[in-house]
Amino acid sequence: MVNNLNDRPIGVFDSGIGGLTVAAELHKRLPAENLIYLGDTARVPYGTKSVAAVNRYALESALFLLNRNVKMIVVACNTVSAVALPRLKMLLSVPMIGVVEPGVRAAVKSTKNDRIGVIATPSTIASKAYQTRLQEALPNATVFGRSCPLLVPMAEEGRVDGKIVSQLLEEYLKSLRKKGTDTLILGCTHYPLFKKTIGEVMGDTVTLVDSAETTAEQVEATLLREGLLRTHGPGMVKAYVTDMPRQFDKVARRFFGAPLGKVERVTLGD
Amino acid sequence: MVNNLNDRPIGVFDSGIGGLTVAAELHKRLPAENLIYLGDTARVPYGTKSVAAVNRYALESALFLLNRNVKMIVVACNTVSAVALPRLKMLLSVPMIGVVEPGVRAAVKSTKNDRIGVIATPSTIASKAYQTRLQEALPNATVFGRSCPLLVPMAEEGRVDGKIVSQLLEEYLKSLRKKGTDTLILGCTHYPLFKKTIGEVMGDTVTLVDSAETTAEQVEATLLREGLLRTHGPGMVKAYVTDMPRQFDKVARRFFGAPLGKVERVTLGD
Repeated sequence: MVNNLNDRPIGVFDSGIGGLTVAAELHKRLPAENLIYLGDTARVPYGTKSVAAVNRYALESALFLLNRNVKMIVVACNTVSAVALPRLKMLLSVPMIGVVEPGVRAAVKSTKNDRIGVIATPSTIASKAYQTRLQEALPNATVFGRSCPLLVPMAEEGRVDGKIVSQLLEEYLKSLRKKGTDTLILGCTHYPLFKKTIGEVMGDTVTLVDSAETTAEQVEATLLREGLLRTHGPGMVKAYVTDMPRQFDKVARRFFGAPLGKVERVTLGD
Repeated sequence: MVNNLNDRPIGVFDSGIGGLTVAAELHKRLPAENLIYLGDTARVPYGTKSVAAVNRYALESALFLLNRNVKMIVVACNTVSAVALPRLKMLLSVPMIGVVEPGVRAAVKSTKNDRIGVIATPSTIASKAYQTRLQEALPNATVFGRSCPLLVPMAEEGRVDGKIVSQLLEEYLKSLRKKGTDTLILGCTHYPLFKKTIGEVMGDTVTLVDSAETTAEQVEATLLREGLLRTHGPGMVKAYVTDMPRQFDKVARRFFGAPLGKVERVTLGD
């Protein structure tokens, strides 16, 4: 019976497809685990919407996954993690992990001068979730936040390098570079796609923190602690989306780095 | 009694706030008319979503307006006009006008060399609505379509000029300029905000067609024909949105050019 419980999938959800970078890291670290991915592509992006809307969408996504009998939920979206996770944790009893906490841990481990930058969506920056938690973990830290509203639509368009991307990132990151940050949190699951250009703009001495890897570590630790780890494999990955945009397959492949099988369309809330 | 019928408002809907440019033109031309504006800001943008999703959202918006007793519906969104309007007209009996037809009329009137460009969202371009109707109206026309996926998020961010906008528009419009088009349809209600830079990139000899004005003309003609014109004023403007994003007021003011009064949040479909 314990084995049966452990065979239940891990649910992963995001506003769209960015969270596939987290799912990919989970699959790499925990290849025996079954994964269910849900992307709310019908209502993407979340990062420019209100807290009330994000709360409602997040609860609908979590309930969808619970109806599919998941043993744990990974909130692979920074906006949801920053804005809606505390309320979700209060409402639901399943173990839940967001991407903000792991990003904070990794940044605290990395910084030498206690000057940490965070780039994220307007909603994540406005929530001050990263700023607050970084300061709790490292009271001497000086944290600089910057919202980058155009990076999500650019990533969804498949535009992740070139002159326009470089200039936009130069504009977004200039002030963070000037402040002498030695660590920059990529506070949105789409942003690792821009890692190369972000690295060029920030310079070699700045460490880029992508929370996908530390999130996977934390998921493994939680499963171990709760006795929920699946030990035999291989795990299956099943993806659901709320809309099937024209370019989904192409973009999803770029994010996940592996074929996903048939993606199913579902309706949430409405 | 006839007067009472004519006092009913005109309903205007859009995926977000772009359609306010059309509502503003209606208010200018028909100041006695009452207007109800609905922006589906909780699910914006439509232009990168599937035909099935756009059809569903459009029907929900139209039903919302019908429940508020509108005498006519103006679809102030190019994506909905291109993708969902024929089905809406089949399902509903209220007079309905989209923005594609007026744009086509204005372009046909303007062109001298029968080479017409259209810029719009990916969904509008993929629907070929402009291309098909232009060729019906002007069989000798050569039509060049180009999707510009980043212009909507840029307009919503308030970024409507500057170096990055110029470079992006240069990239989007280069091929249309080279083809020698003398008329360019701005096939998205957000695009008039970029008129200055688009004009600089295309050059003085190219006429930019913004369908807001011709849509207002066609609305007036339809109201006259149906005996639905309101003759005494002034008209009231009431706006509803499905989400209240942080910057709504500021951006809406830029679009409408006049104060809108209290904007109300409503829920559609879900």
